[in-house]
Amino acid sequence: MSAVVAVSGGLDSVTLAHDLAAQGHDLTLASFDYGQRHVRELACAEACAVRLGASYHPVDLRSVGRLLSGSALTDATVAVPDGHYTDASMKATVVPNRNAILLSVATGLAVAVGADVVATGVHAGDHPIYPDCRPAFIAAFEDMARVANEGFAADGFRVVAPYLTRSKVDIVARGAELGVPFAETWSCYRGGDVHCGRCGTCVERIEAFALAGVADPTPYAAVPA
Amino acid sequence: MSAVVAVSGGLDSVTLAHDLAAQGHDLTLASFDYGQRHVRELACAEACAVRLGASYHPVDLRSVGRLLSGSALTDATVAVPDGHYTDASMKATVVPNRNAILLSVATGLAVAVGADVVATGVHAGDHPIYPDCRPAFIAAFEDMARVANEGFAADGFRVVAPYLTRSKVDIVARGAELGVPFAETWSCYRGGDVHCGRCGTCVERIEAFALAGVADPTPYAAVPA
Repeated sequence: MSAVVAVSGGLDSVTLAHDLAAQGHDLTLASFDYGQRHVRELACAEACAVRLGASYHPVDLRSVGRLLSGSALTDATVAVPDGHYTDASMKATVVPNRNAILLSVATGLAVAVGADVVATGVHAGDHPIYPDCRPAFIAAFEDMARVANEGFAADGFRVVAPYLTRSKVDIVARGAELGVPFAETWSCYRGGDVHCGRCGTCVERIEAFALAGVADPTPYAAVPA
Repeated sequence: MSAVVAVSGGLDSVTLAHDLAAQGHDLTLASFDYGQRHVRELACAEACAVRLGASYHPVDLRSVGRLLSGSALTDATVAVPDGHYTDASMKATVVPNRNAILLSVATGLAVAVGADVVATGVHAGDHPIYPDCRPAFIAAFEDMARVANEGFAADGFRVVAPYLTRSKVDIVARGAELGVPFAETWSCYRGGDVHCGRCGTCVERIEAFALAGVADPTPYAAVPA
Protein backbone atom coordinates (compact mmCIF):
# COMPACT_ATOMS: atom_id res chain seq x y z
CA MET A 1 0.00 0.00 0.00
CA SER A 2 1.15 3.54 -0.61
CA ALA A 3 -0.04 6.54 1.35
CA VAL A 4 0.13 10.31 1.13
CA VAL A 5 0.30 11.70 4.66
CA ALA A 6 -0.55 15.31 5.45
CA VAL A 7 2.20 16.05 7.97
CA SER A 8 2.25 19.30 9.90
CA GLY A 9 5.37 18.42 11.84
CA GLY A 10 3.32 18.09 15.02
CA LEU A 11 3.32 15.17 17.38
CA ASP A 12 0.18 13.58 15.93
CA SER A 13 1.03 13.60 12.25
CA VAL A 14 4.67 12.65 12.76
CA THR A 15 3.63 9.69 14.91
CA LEU A 16 1.11 8.74 12.24
CA ALA A 17 3.81 8.75 9.56
CA HIS A 18 6.01 6.52 11.70
CA ASP A 19 3.03 4.25 12.38
CA LEU A 20 2.21 3.85 8.69
CA ALA A 21 5.88 3.28 7.83
CA ALA A 22 6.03 0.56 10.50
CA GLN A 23 3.01 -1.04 8.83
CA GLY A 24 4.94 -1.21 5.58
CA HIS A 25 3.32 1.61 3.62
CA ASP A 26 5.29 3.45 0.98
CA LEU A 27 5.00 7.05 2.11
CA THR A 28 4.75 10.42 0.44
CA LEU A 29 4.63 13.28 2.94
CA ALA A 30 3.07 16.66 2.18
CA SER A 31 3.37 19.71 4.41
CA PHE A 32 1.68 23.06 4.03
CA ASP A 33 2.82 26.62 4.56
CA TYR A 34 -0.40 28.62 4.88
CA GLY A 35 1.26 31.52 6.64
CA GLN A 36 0.91 30.00 10.11
CA ARG A 37 3.06 31.78 12.65
CA HIS A 38 4.37 28.39 13.75
CA VAL A 39 5.79 27.70 10.30
CA ARG A 40 8.82 26.23 12.00
CA GLU A 41 6.76 23.05 12.40
CA LEU A 42 7.53 22.37 8.74
CA ALA A 43 11.18 21.67 9.50
CA CYS A 44 9.92 18.83 11.69
CA ALA A 45 7.83 17.51 8.81
CA GLU A 46 10.86 17.49 6.54
CA ALA A 47 13.01 15.83 9.20
CA CYS A 48 10.35 13.14 9.52
CA ALA A 49 10.42 12.48 5.77
CA VAL A 50 14.21 12.22 5.81
CA ARG A 51 14.14 9.78 8.73
CA LEU A 52 11.56 7.57 7.05
CA GLY A 53 13.04 7.76 3.56
CA ALA A 54 9.74 9.18 2.29
CA SER A 55 9.37 11.58 -0.59
CA TYR A 56 8.54 15.03 0.71
CA HIS A 57 6.47 17.79 -0.85
CA PRO A 58 6.28 21.16 0.92
CA VAL A 59 3.33 23.07 -0.52
CA ASP A 60 3.22 26.86 -0.57
CA LEU A 61 -0.30 27.96 0.35
CA ARG A 62 0.63 31.38 1.73
CA SER A 63 -1.62 32.99 -0.86
CA VAL A 64 -4.51 30.95 0.52
CA GLY A 65 -3.61 31.78 4.10
CA ARG A 66 -3.82 35.48 3.35
CA LEU A 67 -7.46 35.00 2.31
CA LEU A 68 -8.35 33.29 5.56
CA SER A 69 -7.41 36.10 7.89
CA GLY A 70 -8.93 36.55 11.29
CA SER A 71 -7.42 33.43 12.84
CA ALA A 72 -4.75 33.79 15.49
CA LEU A 73 -2.75 31.21 13.55
CA THR A 74 -2.37 33.28 10.42
CA ASP A 75 -3.12 36.86 11.38
CA ALA A 76 -0.39 38.66 13.30
CA THR A 77 -2.94 41.12 14.68
CA VAL A 78 -4.87 38.36 16.51
CA ALA A 79 -3.26 37.04 19.69
CA VAL A 80 -2.83 33.31 20.33
CA PRO A 81 -4.83 32.70 23.51
CA ASP A 82 -3.42 31.01 26.60
CA GLY A 83 -5.29 28.18 28.23
CA HIS A 84 -6.62 24.74 27.61
CA TYR A 85 -7.40 23.58 24.10
CA THR A 86 -11.12 23.09 24.78
CA ASP A 87 -11.75 26.64 25.95
CA ALA A 88 -14.08 28.66 23.81
CA SER A 89 -11.31 31.21 23.36
CA MET A 90 -9.44 28.67 21.28
CA LYS A 91 -11.99 29.25 18.56
CA ALA A 92 -9.66 32.09 17.66
CA THR A 93 -7.33 29.48 16.19
CA VAL A 94 -9.82 28.11 13.69
CA VAL A 95 -8.62 28.63 10.11
CA PRO A 96 -11.70 28.44 7.89
CA ASN A 97 -11.93 25.16 6.00
CA ARG A 98 -8.27 24.40 6.63
CA ASN A 99 -8.48 20.62 6.68
CA ALA A 100 -10.63 20.47 3.59
CA ILE A 101 -8.09 22.59 1.74
CA LEU A 102 -5.07 20.62 2.92
CA LEU A 103 -6.68 17.23 2.38
CA SER A 104 -7.89 18.28 -1.07
CA VAL A 105 -4.33 19.06 -2.07
CA ALA A 106 -3.12 15.81 -0.50
CA THR A 107 -5.81 13.94 -2.43
CA GLY A 108 -4.73 15.53 -5.71
CA LEU A 109 -1.17 14.46 -4.97
CA ALA A 110 -2.35 10.93 -4.13
CA VAL A 111 -4.16 10.66 -7.46
CA ALA A 112 -1.13 12.06 -9.30
CA VAL A 113 1.25 9.51 -7.75
CA GLY A 114 -1.24 6.63 -7.68
CA ALA A 115 -1.35 6.30 -3.88
CA ASP A 116 -4.05 4.14 -2.32
CA VAL A 117 -4.59 6.24 0.78
CA VAL A 118 -4.57 9.79 2.08
CA ALA A 119 -3.93 9.86 5.82
CA THR A 120 -4.35 12.63 8.37
CA GLY A 121 -3.41 12.76 12.04
CA VAL A 122 -6.57 14.44 13.34
CA HIS A 123 -7.54 12.92 16.67
CA ALA A 124 -10.34 12.86 19.22
CA GLY A 125 -8.99 15.81 21.21
CA ASP A 126 -9.43 18.07 18.20
CA HIS A 127 -13.20 17.57 17.90
CA PRO A 128 -14.66 20.04 20.39
CA ILE A 129 -13.15 23.07 18.67
CA TYR A 130 -12.57 22.23 15.05
CA PRO A 131 -15.56 21.16 12.98
CA ASP A 132 -13.19 19.83 10.32
CA CYS A 133 -11.62 17.33 12.72
CA ARG A 134 -14.77 15.36 13.47
CA PRO A 135 -15.54 11.83 12.26
CA ALA A 136 -18.42 13.27 10.24
CA PHE A 137 -15.99 15.50 8.38
CA ILE A 138 -13.57 12.71 7.54
CA ALA A 139 -16.45 10.56 6.27
CA ALA A 140 -17.90 13.39 4.18
CA PHE A 141 -14.48 14.30 2.83
CA GLU A 142 -13.71 10.72 1.81
CA ASP A 143 -17.05 10.46 0.06
CA MET A 144 -16.41 13.70 -1.82
CA ALA A 145 -12.85 12.71 -2.75
CA ARG A 146 -13.92 9.37 -4.16
CA VAL A 147 -16.63 10.98 -6.27
CA ALA A 148 -14.27 13.73 -7.44
CA ASN A 149 -11.63 11.30 -8.67
CA GLU A 150 -13.67 8.36 -9.86
CA GLY A 151 -11.83 6.64 -12.67
CA PHE A 152 -8.56 8.39 -11.81
CA ALA A 153 -7.85 7.51 -8.16
CA ALA A 154 -6.45 4.08 -7.25
CA ASP A 155 -9.05 1.33 -6.88
CA GLY A 156 -10.42 1.37 -3.36
CA PHE A 157 -8.92 4.79 -2.67
CA ARG A 158 -9.46 5.84 0.94
CA VAL A 159 -9.09 8.86 3.18
CA VAL A 160 -8.18 7.69 6.66
CA ALA A 161 -7.66 9.24 10.07
CA PRO A 162 -6.38 6.33 12.17
CA TYR A 163 -6.29 8.40 15.36
CA LEU A 164 -9.76 9.86 14.95
CA THR A 165 -11.11 8.17 18.06
CA ARG A 166 -7.83 8.16 19.97
CA SER A 167 -6.68 10.75 22.48
CA LYS A 168 -3.38 12.58 22.36
CA VAL A 169 -2.35 10.45 25.34
CA ASP A 170 -2.83 7.35 23.17
CA ILE A 171 -0.79 8.95 20.41
CA VAL A 172 2.11 9.73 22.74
CA ALA A 173 2.02 6.15 23.98
CA ARG A 174 2.00 4.82 20.43
CA GLY A 175 4.79 7.18 19.41
CA ALA A 176 6.92 5.97 22.32
CA GLU A 177 6.40 2.36 21.19
CA LEU A 178 7.51 3.34 17.69
CA GLY A 179 10.55 5.26 18.90
CA VAL A 180 9.36 8.59 17.50
CA PRO A 181 11.94 11.29 18.37
CA PHE A 182 9.41 13.62 20.00
CA ALA A 183 11.95 16.41 20.31
CA GLU A 184 11.71 16.66 16.53
CA THR A 185 8.00 17.49 16.58
CA TRP A 186 6.49 20.91 16.99
CA SER A 187 3.15 21.81 18.60
CA CYS A 188 3.29 25.41 19.87
CA TYR A 189 1.03 27.82 18.00
CA ARG A 190 3.21 30.77 18.98
CA GLY A 191 6.15 29.50 16.96
CA GLY A 192 8.91 31.01 19.10
CA ASP A 193 12.38 29.57 19.61
CA VAL A 194 11.02 27.02 22.08
CA HIS A 195 7.50 25.84 22.90
CA CYS A 196 5.74 28.55 24.96
CA GLY A 197 4.14 26.07 27.37
CA ARG A 198 0.98 28.14 27.76
CA CYS A 199 -1.05 28.04 24.53
CA GLY A 200 -3.71 25.37 24.01
CA THR A 201 -1.53 22.97 22.08
CA CYS A 202 1.35 23.30 24.54
CA VAL A 203 -0.95 22.63 27.50
CA GLU A 204 -2.33 19.59 25.74
CA ARG A 205 1.14 18.34 24.79
CA ILE A 206 2.42 18.63 28.38
CA GLU A 207 -0.65 16.82 29.74
CA ALA A 208 -0.43 14.05 27.15
CA PHE A 209 3.16 13.15 28.04
CA ALA A 210 2.34 13.23 31.75
CA LEU A 211 -0.77 11.06 31.40
CA ALA A 212 0.98 8.61 29.08
CA GLY A 213 3.86 8.27 31.53
CA VAL A 214 6.33 9.12 28.78
CA ALA A 215 9.28 11.45 29.39
CA ASP A 216 8.72 14.77 27.59
CA PRO A 217 11.92 15.92 25.88
CA THR A 218 10.43 19.31 24.94
CA PRO A 219 11.99 22.51 26.30
CA TYR A 220 9.22 24.92 27.32
CA ALA A 221 9.55 28.65 27.95
CA ALA A 222 7.11 28.32 30.85
CA VAL A 223 5.19 25.44 32.36
CA PRO A 224 1.76 26.14 33.88
CA ALA A 225 1.64 25.71 37.65
CA MET B 1 -27.19 37.36 -0.37
CA SER B 2 -23.46 37.38 -0.84
CA ALA B 3 -21.56 34.89 -2.94
CA VAL B 4 -17.98 33.86 -3.55
CA VAL B 5 -17.62 32.84 -7.19
CA ALA B 6 -14.74 30.72 -8.44
CA VAL B 7 -14.02 32.49 -11.72
CA SER B 8 -11.53 31.07 -14.19
CA GLY B 9 -12.05 33.86 -16.69
CA GLY B 10 -13.77 31.44 -19.07
CA LEU B 11 -17.12 31.94 -20.68
CA ASP B 12 -19.03 29.86 -18.15
CA SER B 13 -17.77 31.36 -14.91
CA VAL B 14 -17.80 34.92 -16.21
CA THR B 15 -21.40 34.52 -17.35
CA LEU B 16 -22.24 33.05 -13.96
CA ALA B 17 -20.75 36.06 -12.18
CA HIS B 18 -22.81 38.41 -14.36
CA ASP B 19 -25.88 36.26 -13.72
CA LEU B 20 -25.46 36.39 -9.94
CA ALA B 21 -24.76 40.13 -10.03
CA ALA B 22 -27.96 40.61 -12.04
CA GLN B 23 -29.80 38.70 -9.31
CA GLY B 24 -28.52 41.20 -6.77
CA HIS B 25 -25.82 39.17 -5.03
CA ASP B 26 -22.86 40.91 -3.47
CA LEU B 27 -19.94 39.22 -5.18
CA THR B 28 -16.44 38.21 -4.20
CA LEU B 29 -14.51 36.66 -7.10
CA ALA B 30 -11.62 34.27 -6.63
CA SER B 31 -9.34 33.07 -9.43
CA PHE B 32 -6.60 30.47 -9.26
CA ASP B 33 -3.16 30.26 -10.79
CA TYR B 34 -2.27 26.57 -10.61
CA GLY B 35 0.38 26.79 -13.29
CA GLN B 36 -2.08 26.27 -16.14
CA ARG B 37 -0.57 27.14 -19.50
CA HIS B 38 -3.66 29.24 -20.21
CA VAL B 39 -2.95 31.47 -17.22
CA ARG B 40 -3.94 34.42 -19.36
CA GLU B 41 -7.54 33.48 -18.54
CA LEU B 42 -6.96 35.16 -15.17
CA ALA B 43 -6.83 38.61 -16.76
CA CYS B 44 -10.40 37.95 -17.90
CA ALA B 45 -11.38 37.03 -14.34
CA GLU B 46 -9.95 40.28 -13.04
CA ALA B 47 -11.64 42.30 -15.81
CA CYS B 48 -14.93 40.66 -14.84
CA ALA B 49 -14.47 41.69 -11.20
CA VAL B 50 -13.71 45.27 -12.23
CA ARG B 51 -16.79 45.41 -14.48
CA LEU B 52 -19.05 44.10 -11.73
CA GLY B 53 -17.52 46.10 -8.89
CA ALA B 54 -16.75 42.85 -7.09
CA SER B 55 -13.84 42.30 -4.76
CA TYR B 56 -11.24 40.13 -6.43
CA HIS B 57 -8.82 37.62 -4.94
CA PRO B 58 -6.27 35.98 -7.22
CA VAL B 59 -4.89 32.91 -5.44
CA ASP B 60 -1.41 31.58 -6.13
CA LEU B 61 -1.61 27.78 -6.25
CA ARG B 62 1.42 27.23 -8.47
CA SER B 63 3.03 25.15 -5.74
CA VAL B 64 -0.02 22.88 -5.83
CA GLY B 65 -0.01 22.72 -9.61
CA ARG B 66 3.57 21.44 -9.60
CA LEU B 67 2.42 18.46 -7.52
CA LEU B 68 -0.31 17.57 -9.98
CA SER B 69 1.89 17.05 -13.00
CA GLY B 70 0.96 14.80 -15.87
CA SER B 71 -1.93 16.90 -17.11
CA ALA B 72 -1.63 18.71 -20.41
CA LEU B 73 -2.93 21.80 -18.63
CA THR B 74 -0.05 22.09 -16.20
CA ASP B 75 2.78 20.01 -17.62
CA ALA B 76 4.65 21.55 -20.54
CA THR B 77 5.83 18.10 -21.62
CA VAL B 78 2.26 16.87 -22.25
CA ALA B 79 0.60 18.17 -25.41
CA VAL B 80 -2.89 19.68 -25.40
CA PRO B 81 -4.88 17.40 -27.71
CA ASP B 82 -6.89 18.64 -30.68
CA GLY B 83 -10.45 17.55 -31.15
CA HIS B 84 -13.81 17.56 -29.51
CA TYR B 85 -14.09 17.90 -25.77
CA THR B 86 -15.75 14.53 -25.27
CA ASP B 87 -12.97 12.54 -26.90
CA ALA B 88 -11.17 10.14 -24.62
CA SER B 89 -7.93 11.93 -25.46
CA MET B 90 -9.21 14.94 -23.54
CA LYS B 91 -8.62 12.93 -20.40
CA ALA B 92 -5.10 14.32 -20.75
CA THR B 93 -6.48 17.63 -19.50
CA VAL B 94 -7.73 16.28 -16.17
CA VAL B 95 -5.93 17.93 -13.26
CA PRO B 96 -6.32 15.59 -10.26
CA ASN B 97 -8.88 16.84 -7.77
CA ARG B 98 -8.79 20.34 -9.22
CA ASN B 99 -12.33 21.39 -8.45
CA ALA B 100 -12.19 20.07 -4.90
CA ILE B 101 -9.04 22.08 -4.30
CA LEU B 102 -10.37 25.29 -5.86
CA LEU B 103 -13.78 25.03 -4.21
CA SER B 104 -12.19 24.25 -0.85
CA VAL B 105 -10.22 27.49 -1.05
CA ALA B 106 -13.33 29.37 -2.21
CA THR B 107 -15.25 27.89 0.72
CA GLY B 108 -12.57 29.02 3.18
CA LEU B 109 -12.82 32.50 1.71
CA ALA B 110 -16.61 32.42 1.96
CA VAL B 111 -16.44 31.51 5.64
CA ALA B 112 -13.83 34.20 6.26
CA VAL B 113 -15.96 36.94 4.64
CA GLY B 114 -19.30 35.57 5.84
CA ALA B 115 -20.69 34.81 2.38
CA ASP B 116 -23.84 32.73 2.07
CA VAL B 117 -22.91 30.91 -1.10
CA VAL B 118 -19.99 29.49 -3.04
CA ALA B 119 -20.79 29.32 -6.75
CA THR B 120 -19.06 27.50 -9.58
CA GLY B 121 -19.68 27.57 -13.31
CA VAL B 122 -19.36 23.86 -14.01
CA HIS B 123 -21.93 22.80 -16.58
CA ALA B 124 -23.44 19.73 -18.18
CA GLY B 125 -20.91 19.60 -21.01
CA ASP B 126 -18.11 19.03 -18.51
CA HIS B 127 -19.52 15.80 -17.09
CA PRO B 128 -18.32 13.14 -19.53
CA ILE B 129 -14.64 13.88 -18.93
CA TYR B 130 -14.25 15.41 -15.52
CA PRO B 131 -15.48 13.42 -12.53
CA ASP B 132 -15.34 16.58 -10.41
CA CYS B 133 -17.87 18.37 -12.60
CA ARG B 134 -20.76 15.96 -12.06
CA PRO B 135 -23.87 16.66 -9.98
CA ALA B 136 -22.77 13.93 -7.57
CA PHE B 137 -19.54 15.82 -6.94
CA ILE B 138 -21.24 19.13 -6.25
CA ALA B 139 -23.65 17.45 -3.84
CA ALA B 140 -20.85 15.59 -2.03
CA PHE B 141 -18.72 18.72 -1.89
CA GLU B 142 -21.53 20.81 -0.45
CA ASP B 143 -22.19 18.18 2.18
CA MET B 144 -18.51 18.07 3.13
CA ALA B 145 -18.19 21.87 3.21
CA ARG B 146 -21.18 22.26 5.50
CA VAL B 147 -19.84 19.66 7.92
CA ALA B 148 -16.34 21.16 7.81
CA ASN B 149 -17.54 24.64 8.71
CA GLU B 150 -20.49 23.98 10.99
CA GLY B 151 -20.78 26.81 13.49
CA PHE B 152 -18.52 29.08 11.41
CA ALA B 153 -20.15 29.29 7.95
CA ALA B 154 -23.17 31.52 7.40
CA ASP B 155 -26.52 29.97 8.33
CA GLY B 156 -27.85 28.00 5.39
CA PHE B 157 -24.47 28.10 3.65
CA ARG B 158 -24.64 26.54 0.17
CA VAL B 159 -22.38 25.42 -2.64
CA VAL B 160 -24.17 25.95 -5.93
CA ALA B 161 -23.55 25.22 -9.59
CA PRO B 162 -26.46 26.94 -11.34
CA TYR B 163 -25.40 25.70 -14.79
CA LEU B 164 -24.88 22.11 -13.72
CA THR B 165 -27.65 20.79 -15.94
CA ARG B 166 -27.29 23.45 -18.63
CA SER B 167 -25.29 23.16 -21.83
CA LYS B 168 -22.69 25.61 -23.01
CA VAL B 169 -25.21 26.66 -25.66
CA ASP B 170 -27.59 27.67 -22.87
CA ILE B 171 -24.80 29.59 -21.16
CA VAL B 172 -23.93 31.55 -24.30
CA ALA B 173 -27.61 32.39 -24.73
CA ARG B 174 -27.86 33.52 -21.12
CA GLY B 175 -24.65 35.53 -21.40
CA ALA B 176 -26.00 37.30 -24.48
CA GLU B 177 -29.16 38.23 -22.55
CA LEU B 178 -26.99 39.62 -19.77
CA GLY B 179 -24.74 41.57 -22.13
CA VAL B 180 -21.59 39.66 -21.16
CA PRO B 181 -18.64 40.95 -23.21
CA PHE B 182 -17.62 37.54 -24.52
CA ALA B 183 -14.44 38.91 -26.08
CA GLU B 184 -13.24 39.35 -22.51
CA THR B 185 -13.50 35.65 -21.71
CA TRP B 186 -10.85 33.03 -22.35
CA SER B 187 -11.39 29.35 -23.13
CA CYS B 188 -8.37 28.02 -25.07
CA TYR B 189 -6.25 25.49 -23.17
CA ARG B 190 -3.20 26.33 -25.27
CA GLY B 191 -3.02 29.88 -23.94
CA GLY B 192 -1.47 31.51 -27.01
CA ASP B 193 -2.02 35.08 -28.17
CA VAL B 194 -5.41 34.18 -29.61
CA HIS B 195 -7.68 31.14 -29.18
CA CYS B 196 -6.22 28.22 -31.17
CA GLY B 197 -9.60 27.10 -32.53
CA ARG B 198 -8.65 23.41 -32.42
CA CYS B 199 -8.41 22.22 -28.79
CA GLY B 200 -11.44 20.77 -27.04
CA THR B 201 -12.55 23.94 -25.34
CA CYS B 202 -12.12 26.00 -28.51
CA VAL B 203 -14.18 23.51 -30.53
CA GLU B 204 -16.88 23.58 -27.89
CA ARG B 205 -16.83 27.39 -27.71
CA ILE B 206 -17.20 27.76 -31.47
CA GLU B 207 -20.07 25.27 -31.56
CA ALA B 208 -21.85 26.88 -28.64
CA PHE B 209 -21.96 30.31 -30.27
CA ALA B 210 -23.13 28.78 -33.54
CA LEU B 211 -25.88 26.71 -31.93
CA ALA B 212 -27.03 29.59 -29.73
CA GLY B 213 -27.23 31.88 -32.76
CA VAL B 214 -25.02 34.42 -31.04
CA ALA B 215 -22.25 36.27 -32.87
CA ASP B 216 -18.85 35.01 -31.72
CA PRO B 217 -16.44 37.92 -31.20
CA THR B 218 -13.47 35.61 -30.60
CA PRO B 219 -10.46 35.75 -32.94
CA TYR B 220 -9.27 32.17 -33.62
CA ALA B 221 -5.91 31.12 -35.07
CA ALA B 222 -7.67 28.39 -37.05
CA VAL B 223 -11.26 27.28 -37.36
CA PRO B 224 -11.98 23.58 -38.00
CA ALA B 225 -13.45 22.82 -41.45
